[in-house]
Amino acid sequence: MKTLTVDLPGRAYDIHIERGVLARSGELCRSVLPRARRLAVVTDSTVGPLYGRKVLESLRAAGFDARLLTVPAGEESKSLDMLGQLYDGLTGMGLTRTDAVAALGGGVVGDLAGFAAATILRGVDFVQLPTTLLAQVDSSVGGKVAIDLPAGKNLAGAFWQPKLVLMDPAALGTLDDRTFSDGMAEVIKYGCIADAGFFSFLQTHPSRGEIMGEIESVLYTCCDIKRKVVLADERDTGVRMLLNFGHTLGHAYEKAGHYRTWTHGQAVAAGMVKVTELGERLGVSPAGLAAEIGVLLGCFGLPVAIGCSMDDYAAAIGLDKKGAGDDLSLILLDRMGHALAHKLPRAQLLDLLGEETR
Amino acid sequence: MKTLTVDLPGRAYDIHIERGVLARSGELCRSVLPRARRLAVVTDSTVGPLYGRKVLESLRAAGFDARLLTVPAGEESKSLDMLGQLYDGLTGMGLTRTDAVAALGGGVVGDLAGFAAATILRGVDFVQLPTTLLAQVDSSVGGKVAIDLPAGKNLAGAFWQPKLVLMDPAALGTLDDRTFSDGMAEVIKYGCIADAGFFSFLQTHPSRGEIMGEIESVLYTCCDIKRKVVLADERDTGVRMLLNFGHTLGHAYEKAGHYRTWTHGQAVAAGMVKVTELGERLGVSPAGLAAEIGVLLGCFGLPVAIGCSMDDYAAAIGLDKKGAGDDLSLILLDRMGHALAHKLPRAQLLDLLGEETR
Repeated sequence: MKTLTVDLPGRAYDIHIERGVLARSGELCRSVLPRARRLAVVTDSTVGPLYGRKVLESLRAAGFDARLLTVPAGEESKSLDMLGQLYDGLTGMGLTRTDAVAALGGGVVGDLAGFAAATILRGVDFVQLPTTLLAQVDSSVGGKVAIDLPAGKNLAGAFWQPKLVLMDPAALGTLDDRTFSDGMAEVIKYGCIADAGFFSFLQTHPSRGEIMGEIESVLYTCCDIKRKVVLADERDTGVRMLLNFGHTLGHAYEKAGHYRTWTHGQAVAAGMVKVTELGERLGVSPAGLAAEIGVLLGCFGLPVAIGCSMDDYAAAIGLDKKGAGDDLSLILLDRMGHALAHKLPRAQLLDLLGEETR
Repeated sequence: MKTLTVDLPGRAYDIHIERGVLARSGELCRSVLPRARRLAVVTDSTVGPLYGRKVLESLRAAGFDARLLTVPAGEESKSLDMLGQLYDGLTGMGLTRTDAVAALGGGVVGDLAGFAAATILRGVDFVQLPTTLLAQVDSSVGGKVAIDLPAGKNLAGAFWQPKLVLMDPAALGTLDDRTFSDGMAEVIKYGCIADAGFFSFLQTHPSRGEIMGEIESVLYTCCDIKRKVVLADERDTGVRMLLNFGHTLGHAYEKAGHYRTWTHGQAVAAGMVKVTELGERLGVSPAGLAAEIGVLLGCFGLPVAIGCSMDDYAAAIGLDKKGAGDDLSLILLDRMGHALAHKLPRAQLLDLLGEETR
């Protein structure tokens, strides 16, 4: 077992990375939730049938009155409507302020359940049991929870740190290739923004099989990078924005595909390449960097370019939560393994994107 | 002008109490929101026509791109559905993370707008411009924001402190008597739980006219009591529960009347009398205290008893957010001006209520 501690003052929590840890979720949850009686395990229609029973049995053996609340699999569940249904499920089981909510699944389940935990009864304890690569390396760590709104992704949410994160690498075995690759986009992102040596390591392990051979170490490296960034900037007002490398344009691609055509990872992959091409043209990124990133993404079946209308770019840029006033902070690499925020007017960015597509 | 500072570490904010302060809201908001460009002023269909224009003019003169978002007046607006409409209004005006939300109105507007501010873009700055007595002495101070769920009042929400609270006593002049009395229940509550001298003062000013003659001082005293309690227990895990004197049973009465028959203040008034009668029977409260409170409440046209089925009592008790496990903390007075939390099993409380109604 590998353990990382996210040492936020007064709200420190552990991330345990261990094959088979889901079967030990009861004892581990009990250690951080000594007073909780009811534990609502939010999952989705894909993950629930695979791991729900194992987790419930372990939780019940540890004395929790644990129940499964299942939402339909897919991004569509990150809605205000589904949040309302979840609220009704939580009040229906008689949840009190000393009880807790767990998320068993991928990023959608984690974000939705986390937002419900942050707000039901004005906030109850929360535990993350991420089962996808994307959720393990990204969304389950750092406390960002949210739902989507008609105007865009993740537009309503909270910062709500979990009490514990349990990552079972064995759960990744049941992912289809597309979902695995979805997470690889974020894995590669960590190399790009913070660790050139890790990027090189990934270049020498350019397949799912080779990554899985070293998965505990890969998860550890990614979560350690994210942990450090979150500790430096929990509320996402400074350095944390570096984690959004590839995401501003990625959101445009997700929106262009109505959140169905492209997964989050696919959109981020294309966003990283595109923004690095812009970085090269702006003289911030060294020539050839976008191509180097593209090659590695390609090894995992990720797209290096996605078509997108100027309207979708404009919408994604105009409403970007990282924006301050009329300027937008674009995350660029000034070298492999090092990111920075480059401020430029939204209008100029749109012009650059327009030239690019002509 | 009277000013109180709620000195929360890193999030201190001022409460200004001043006749005509709404007309100065622009300069005062600008002083605490130096970077904000857009300011969404959430109000309701009653308050908007009265004060919306005055506030917008002042805000625009201070350089804000200020817009009114109006919800229907009434408790029904504290819903997930209305929250969604508010989210759409906020994204539609292009709100960014450096912009802000203001609440202009009573408790419903403050709670709803505050929850939207706490969660839109994972939280933006928030300002309270309370226009009812209830909102001025209670809901606008302390950072509790929420919406109602089908299962009960205030069941989803957050702790989200405002950057500023502006109280204009002149706004109370347009309240009808019932709405004014609604706030008097909370005013009287402060005397009961924390200040016997203030309770005596109220006994010598037993009418709306006499209270309005001393309104700045009344508002100051109430907010100062609330301020101290919030500072001691922002997250409502300890002493803050004393503010819930009369509220546990009050919630049962509100629910019994489907949140329409009885105002919050009316329900709390009856709840304070009823729970003090229980306190007398439990030997915690001195004999005659319930009657003394009832007389003062009666001076302001507030009910001292409300009929309620055992089912409504049970529902209100079972889901009470202040409950820990199977015990419930009932707030009782051991003497005038001093409250304490008395733990007892929910079942025993229900039995006591049952004997009482037979």
